[in-house]
Amino acid sequence: MNLLLLSEEDFTGANCVQLQGRRFKHVAEVHRASVGDLLSVGLLNGPLGKGRVTTLTSGSITLELHLDQLPPAPLPVTLVLALPRPKVLKRVLIAASSMGVKKIFLINSFRVEKSFWKSPLLGREQMDEFLTLGLEQAKDTVMPEVHLRPLFKPFAEDELPAVIKDTLALVAHPAAEERCPRGLTQPATLAIGPEGGFIPYEIEKLAFIGFRPVSLGQRTLRVETVVPALLSKLF
Amino acid sequence: MNLLLLSEEDFTGANCVQLQGRRFKHVAEVHRASVGDLLSVGLLNGPLGKGRVTTLTSGSITLELHLDQLPPAPLPVTLVLALPRPKVLKRVLIAASSMGVKKIFLINSFRVEKSFWKSPLLGREQMDEFLTLGLEQAKDTVMPEVHLRPLFKPFAEDELPAVIKDTLALVAHPAAEERCPRGLTQPATLAIGPEGGFIPYEIEKLAFIGFRPVSLGQRTLRVETVVPALLSKLF
Repeated sequence: MNLLLLSEEDFTGANCVQLQGRRFKHVAEVHRASVGDLLSVGLLNGPLGKGRVTTLTSGSITLELHLDQLPPAPLPVTLVLALPRPKVLKRVLIAASSMGVKKIFLINSFRVEKSFWKSPLLGREQMDEFLTLGLEQAKDTVMPEVHLRPLFKPFAEDELPAVIKDTLALVAHPAAEERCPRGLTQPATLAIGPEGGFIPYEIEKLAFIGFRPVSLGQRTLRVETVVPALLSKLF
Repeated sequence: MNLLLLSEEDFTGANCVQLQGRRFKHVAEVHRASVGDLLSVGLLNGPLGKGRVTTLTSGSITLELHLDQLPPAPLPVTLVLALPRPKVLKRVLIAASSMGVKKIFLINSFRVEKSFWKSPLLGREQMDEFLTLGLEQAKDTVMPEVHLRPLFKPFAEDELPAVIKDTLALVAHPAAEERCPRGLTQPATLAIGPEGGFIPYEIEKLAFIGFRPVSLGQRTLRVETVVPALLSKLF
């Protein structure tokens, strides 16, 4: 936790917050903060700055805020990701959030196991917890949007053309002949398939609406490895 | 498991192997292979090719091999990594192995918790298991070397200068002004610190022997995210 992320409910005055629970525990046990210490803080979807510890009890901490910085620039990318297995989803959401992705579609694909769509990790609160871990890691405050699209065809046909408008649309496909481009200067939409990859019908569908299949080379990587690798290659 | 990795002990004849245990289970339950099927196989530190299923019992499988391909090219990089916490180490070893890293030094640093060095995951067999998972993922056969260096100073002073000879030596450092270069055409040595980063003394030591501090930008990332992100940026 490199940043304490604050929400409106934490405020007890114009520039004053009181924290309990997980954030208090972290400040008390990891930072071992004392009265007077300055901590990195940020307001959810707002500015960042410092919080000075004004009181510290056995169960809560009070901070006086000075918020004067903008959050770091987002990555200009929309991630379209075949729903991974739950424990991988968690890691991918944390990584994508920490790298600055602000819009994620979790979509179905032939090789996504049906049971993945029933995972409790897809609940809004649970996903926000993972996304928050990524923001705290990267000292960012802007919560990413995550959209669930459990039907591939209507999403690809009716919604995806508008998503990729004015972006470079790429689909990661180990069999593609074109190598993934580097150092983009334009916004991108990046589609990543499930373990085993998108099936030919899905690749064709994506290519038809404007996605270019690209590869990272001969090696097929795990989803949790390929997401940071591709984002870092592109930007 | 995109590849069955074979070792000398599996051979029952010149071109014939018999598998039990984990690999048999995977072939039977995930591939659901039948006699006559062709599976991707590779000989540890040797060539790759296909194995045709010749017999299948309730506890073992026999394959006839045809090995005629070279393993994919390695990444020309030596990874010098402050020992991460055990569960992160596991993920980093799998990711680095799948991306083609062949030489890894796990080193001490001021912010590495002493207890990490006592983890059973640092045993040779346990680490080889993680490295094997990465090779199987990427259809590679060449086992990476992992070296443990629990003392920072003697490693940095006595051994590291020879390691970085004729390579571009970079140390990931969030505070660095220089951005991480892209698309290297020369071999590299990449040093990555612990959560919280190398301390100034360590950065100075590394810079003194020839490492250039570079950053991925304003965002500090987790070790398991920064390893694939940096490797992908560099190559």
